[in-house]
Amino acid sequence: MISPLWNHKPSSVVVGLMSGTSLDGIDAAIVSIEGSGLQAEVKLLHYFSTPYDDELRERLKELCTVQHSSVDLVCGMNVYLAERFAEAAIEAVRNAGMEMKEIDLISSHGQTVWHIPQPDIQDPYLIRSTLQLGDLSVLAKRTGCMVVGDFRPADMAVGGQGAPLAPYGDLILYRDPGKGRLLQNIGGIGNCTALPPAAGPEDVFAFDTGPGNMVIDQVVYLLSGGERSYDDGGTWAMQGTVDWILVEEVIQHPYFGLQPPKSTGREVFGKAYAEEFAAKARERSLADADIVATATAFTARTIAEGYNRYVFPLCRIDEVIVSGGGAHNAALLDMLQAMLPDQKVLTSGQLGYNDDAKEAIIFALLGNDFMHGVANNLPSATGAERQTIMGKLAFP
Amino acid sequence: MISPLWNHKPSSVVVGLMSGTSLDGIDAAIVSIEGSGLQAEVKLLHYFSTPYDDELRERLKELCTVQHSSVDLVCGMNVYLAERFAEAAIEAVRNAGMEMKEIDLISSHGQTVWHIPQPDIQDPYLIRSTLQLGDLSVLAKRTGCMVVGDFRPADMAVGGQGAPLAPYGDLILYRDPGKGRLLQNIGGIGNCTALPPAAGPEDVFAFDTGPGNMVIDQVVYLLSGGERSYDDGGTWAMQGTVDWILVEEVIQHPYFGLQPPKSTGREVFGKAYAEEFAAKARERSLADADIVATATAFTARTIAEGYNRYVFPLCRIDEVIVSGGGAHNAALLDMLQAMLPDQKVLTSGQLGYNDDAKEAIIFALLGNDFMHGVANNLPSATGAERQTIMGKLAFP
Repeated sequence: MISPLWNHKPSSVVVGLMSGTSLDGIDAAIVSIEGSGLQAEVKLLHYFSTPYDDELRERLKELCTVQHSSVDLVCGMNVYLAERFAEAAIEAVRNAGMEMKEIDLISSHGQTVWHIPQPDIQDPYLIRSTLQLGDLSVLAKRTGCMVVGDFRPADMAVGGQGAPLAPYGDLILYRDPGKGRLLQNIGGIGNCTALPPAAGPEDVFAFDTGPGNMVIDQVVYLLSGGERSYDDGGTWAMQGTVDWILVEEVIQHPYFGLQPPKSTGREVFGKAYAEEFAAKARERSLADADIVATATAFTARTIAEGYNRYVFPLCRIDEVIVSGGGAHNAALLDMLQAMLPDQKVLTSGQLGYNDDAKEAIIFALLGNDFMHGVANNLPSATGAERQTIMGKLAFP
Repeated sequence: MISPLWNHKPSSVVVGLMSGTSLDGIDAAIVSIEGSGLQAEVKLLHYFSTPYDDELRERLKELCTVQHSSVDLVCGMNVYLAERFAEAAIEAVRNAGMEMKEIDLISSHGQTVWHIPQPDIQDPYLIRSTLQLGDLSVLAKRTGCMVVGDFRPADMAVGGQGAPLAPYGDLILYRDPGKGRLLQNIGGIGNCTALPPAAGPEDVFAFDTGPGNMVIDQVVYLLSGGERSYDDGGTWAMQGTVDWILVEEVIQHPYFGLQPPKSTGREVFGKAYAEEFAAKARERSLADADIVATATAFTARTIAEGYNRYVFPLCRIDEVIVSGGGAHNAALLDMLQAMLPDQKVLTSGQLGYNDDAKEAIIFALLGNDFMHGVANNLPSATGAERQTIMGKLAFP
């Protein structure tokens, strides 16, 4: 066995790159990290975000369907996205007034295009697996930096679901000696991390609550004829009236009754699902604003439903801290607060963190751990049988 | 910058894993290597091969087509193959009478399922790229070994075609002070490496000659109704008569007129191409054995054509040394010798090397170099702008 790559390195500057299932673009967090593992001290130096253009987003949506995807596009997109990630990292560093030579590492999540958390019993080749694009070598050669990334398959290889990975970072960033906290990230998919008061690694549990912005975004895109890709601030939803009967119908989806740990993605709540949702709403003669309001209420409801079934019976929660794109949707936050009368719903921005940067910061932590030879998965969140070092390394 | 992972390690035991475009299975070469780079001294300790079953091969062939591939199968197959690679490595070590703890590294090529050597001008997302499956983390966790692999994208990222990679190993293994040698590997694709007498790295040149066994295998599969997947020893071809008019027609394919460096794959000479070839042969009323003989002659002709156009005008060649599955096809070797009256056609077995192990040995060398922090691409062969360290590392 070799010694860790960063044996006695006291601190590092890492660019964390995150591209979520909402397909809105690339988040880059430049952080300085002292130490590693649960003792890591992290400081956000700069946050930078760059959107995917609409054409790329549409091609990615196609790539995330069985019907419209093919091996050539997977092959091309794996490198195309890596080039985009490299541009984003370089631009983030420039934007921060820094130079690439100050960067010790880039740590990249990649773009998830498929995720099979449970093997398909019909097809022996569709085994438990996950696919993140954005080739690490291309990213390393373009930026001149060492790159670690593609974390999820390692957790799956030791029996985990490869998701959620954020709870590991949530524990490092948000544990509180006195308060029980629920961290709710609302990206394309919604995922929550429960941190009981004074939580240790074994006390954390987490799961994907269901669609985050994914259904809302897709419905907005459909209803606006492609003009808008998300409901900015939740203003469209606020103009409509929620159809609670439809909410009750769609919340019957079997995902919401599954015991955690569980994870989901675009292959379940993607384009096809949203089109079906919109069609049901139209059958019920809902106006456009009502459809957006109902999609928003459904999303809030999936979150509250997850808490009521799987979190509140197990531990005391005082605060729900929302991050991700959904933290900017006031309609969604209001509905969520109304459904959670005993908890205080906050955004991570209100706690002094950057709402958007959280996931990118967490992937910077995971890459830093890889370089220190420190296990960086959290079996209590992913269901893995053991701790292991996730990630792969490419040289510049 | 970090120091290399194996800074002062004098020797290592590496399992090289190779799965070629012929889709016949997994070759494992257990080697001991002293040193690194061009000074590496390699000794084959054990060679082990395990075939893909027919169902897997058919699924892979589908995955290598635009029409029948989809993102879910890419996702599943990436992990499925890694599990198979891990079984092969473990079985190879057991078969050698060794234990896993004696193995310092596994170095894996992966299964190529798509390769875009030149960007598609019609589609900006189909950029220069290549896709090898067999997740490195899964392979590392299953075997308990460190794993390096997925070499090709790094060469492409510095302007190369990501292929051929074998010439780097050919140079280490076969350079001769007095003789000019052509190394011809005949796997799914045929590729050659020209080593002028006393060759150095800048003197080597190499290119894919075209289909290796790929067209022959597919034609045999078709004509035998799926009973046979290759022409064992070339015996079927020997029973037929070559239709030279058809050979002259198919050799007009534009690939054979391209200047090296050039590479090709199943996306050009795969199932669809072979079906078209067989249909043309049937139109010309050829019997089955004649079709196999003609496919074999076509393959020999693509190789000789490549030499006559792009090698012999540039350097003296005394010996043509054939390796890969095609080295077992006596009909193919005889035809090749007849087309090359001024050279001696040998198999690498006749030089004391294992015909089948060569590519797996070369990938062991590439992984060893990665661990030593040594550049392992050969720009003169791939067209890359510079030397670089190819590969990605995963921890057990």
